[in-house]
Amino acid sequence: MRAAVLHAPGDVRFEERDVPKIIEPTDAIIRMAATCVCGSDLWSYRGITPVAEPTPMGHEYCGIVEEVGRAVTAIKPGQFVIGSFFASDNTCPNCQAGYPSSCQRKEFVGGAQAGRLRVPLADGTLVATPDVPSNDLIPSLLTLSDVMGTGWFAADAANVKPGMTVAVVGDGAVGLLGVLSAKQMGAERIIAMSRHESRQKLAREFGATEIVTERGDEGVARIKELTQGIGADAVLECVGTQESMMQAIRSTRPGGSVGYVGVPHGVELNGSELFFAHVHLHGGPAPVRRFLPELIDLVWNGKINPGKVFDLTLPLEQVAEGYRAMDERRAIKTLLRP
Amino acid sequence: MRAAVLHAPGDVRFEERDVPKIIEPTDAIIRMAATCVCGSDLWSYRGITPVAEPTPMGHEYCGIVEEVGRAVTAIKPGQFVIGSFFASDNTCPNCQAGYPSSCQRKEFVGGAQAGRLRVPLADGTLVATPDVPSNDLIPSLLTLSDVMGTGWFAADAANVKPGMTVAVVGDGAVGLLGVLSAKQMGAERIIAMSRHESRQKLAREFGATEIVTERGDEGVARIKELTQGIGADAVLECVGTQESMMQAIRSTRPGGSVGYVGVPHGVELNGSELFFAHVHLHGGPAPVRRFLPELIDLVWNGKINPGKVFDLTLPLEQVAEGYRAMDERRAIKTLLRP
Repeated sequence: MRAAVLHAPGDVRFEERDVPKIIEPTDAIIRMAATCVCGSDLWSYRGITPVAEPTPMGHEYCGIVEEVGRAVTAIKPGQFVIGSFFASDNTCPNCQAGYPSSCQRKEFVGGAQAGRLRVPLADGTLVATPDVPSNDLIPSLLTLSDVMGTGWFAADAANVKPGMTVAVVGDGAVGLLGVLSAKQMGAERIIAMSRHESRQKLAREFGATEIVTERGDEGVARIKELTQGIGADAVLECVGTQESMMQAIRSTRPGGSVGYVGVPHGVELNGSELFFAHVHLHGGPAPVRRFLPELIDLVWNGKINPGKVFDLTLPLEQVAEGYRAMDERRAIKTLLRP
Repeated sequence: MRAAVLHAPGDVRFEERDVPKIIEPTDAIIRMAATCVCGSDLWSYRGITPVAEPTPMGHEYCGIVEEVGRAVTAIKPGQFVIGSFFASDNTCPNCQAGYPSSCQRKEFVGGAQAGRLRVPLADGTLVATPDVPSNDLIPSLLTLSDVMGTGWFAADAANVKPGMTVAVVGDGAVGLLGVLSAKQMGAERIIAMSRHESRQKLAREFGATEIVTERGDEGVARIKELTQGIGADAVLECVGTQESMMQAIRSTRPGGSVGYVGVPHGVELNGSELFFAHVHLHGGPAPVRRFLPELIDLVWNGKINPGKVFDLTLPLEQVAEGYRAMDERRAIKTLLRP
């Protein structure tokens, strides 16, 4: 089969790889219904995270189970399944506490930009949909594998509750789905921080009530202005830079919460500033598996339509163009069809 | 009157100062029943926090109201009152949200190591006890002004709940009262990190079930050993150094919480480590005012006896010896009687 492999910054190739096979008895092989490019893939695509050797790309997936190992009992061939970018056993103490992305046996699931994928710990990792979905549901179901689960975790980690004022730092796909998540959780005001018209538009569709175009300290000042000088009750950090993290912390009222899901790159937090900010801080790699049953239900019943973040759909073989479009911010998020 | 004034590192003098007067109509003047030396006073006593000019010391107080400004309505002369080291109006949005130590009108209350003290925003800041207390209650009531409220906030910020396993980093008075607070909140196991016999003994009296003498990474390894490799559900950080903060974060299970109340000195948190630690982080200057009614009730009814942290009582005029004893770790905490 052919699959996406990153050779060097900017150099994604669609090239021949071995078809994945069952290795462990707990594995499953799935035939991809759709996959996509993640904002976090751009860190290595842009050379910010170095890649030592040619690396199979992609970690967002959904599709039909083709084969399972002999120890797999809950997942069966023919089922349509979704899983997280971290495989997890769903039984260890960290999984039981709601943190499958810190599972004691966690394994990163890489190489999903391909026609077939091996998923470890299939019983713990994969969740089947009620039935094989119609084609129009697939984009939204695919988002649950990472980007929607991550936006949801940002809102969950920021303790978003009905009636709150929420600010979202970052207008990438995760930030936009953070807006949708905050709306779904009952936020009254949702302030999206964005300076791109197409993203502002989608933010409003997802539930944003206000748009702030300023960044950094000016962005903070604008949030304060909009909140009687206090700051937002909850702020979702969906970027991962020093500037975005400080923007999030400084936009939060004392006693409020920052949920941060942007993978940090060069972020250092000053202990004294954090101390006097009086905020709650929680985040990390989203425990997507925890949210899958609830989010599948919301998508299946038409309550949310997170698939709208895909504004570019390409055949998988054009994966390189999918990266380019996102890198140049021509696309918010690229869906790839094998 | 005479009062404690810090002139230079190690140089605390008991010297003549003006008797405080009502300045703002919202002020009250109280006659000190007792005051004490705080662990945080040692930062400047040791020269770690520089003092630019002779500084009146002390911020923990309780006593009888002597006089109130004309705008004070809730507090009356003759009442026995306790207040926080931050005066607060108790009406602004931050106060209403439970963060009086981030009050929009907050003022630090300094110069409490004296016979008389001016307390700003008296109606918002001071809480009266049900009656004038007997002498034996005064040490415990005094702790509510800071050290007990701060230990309580550490446990509250760390989300301590019944049945939890809690670790406490720091065996100073705040850490020890963090142990007491965790016990009061229903923790099942309380691991005190201490290598001083007298402090270990008091920790056990306050409810510690285990003692860990190792520090830094060895301390973390020991906590992991005691918690099936997972870490504690809640960790109270009661020191404020880089080492203690990292010890707290690394001792916490994924999804668990760190409550930090040690005033940070040179603490920098690495964004990536924090991200993958998956912990909740909350802390800052304790919102003591929020807890005063509940804690007064617990002391008044003999449910808790936090005054046990005072293992040295001196007349106020011997304040310099009170600092020395704490600096040399001969005393956990010094109570001063005017």
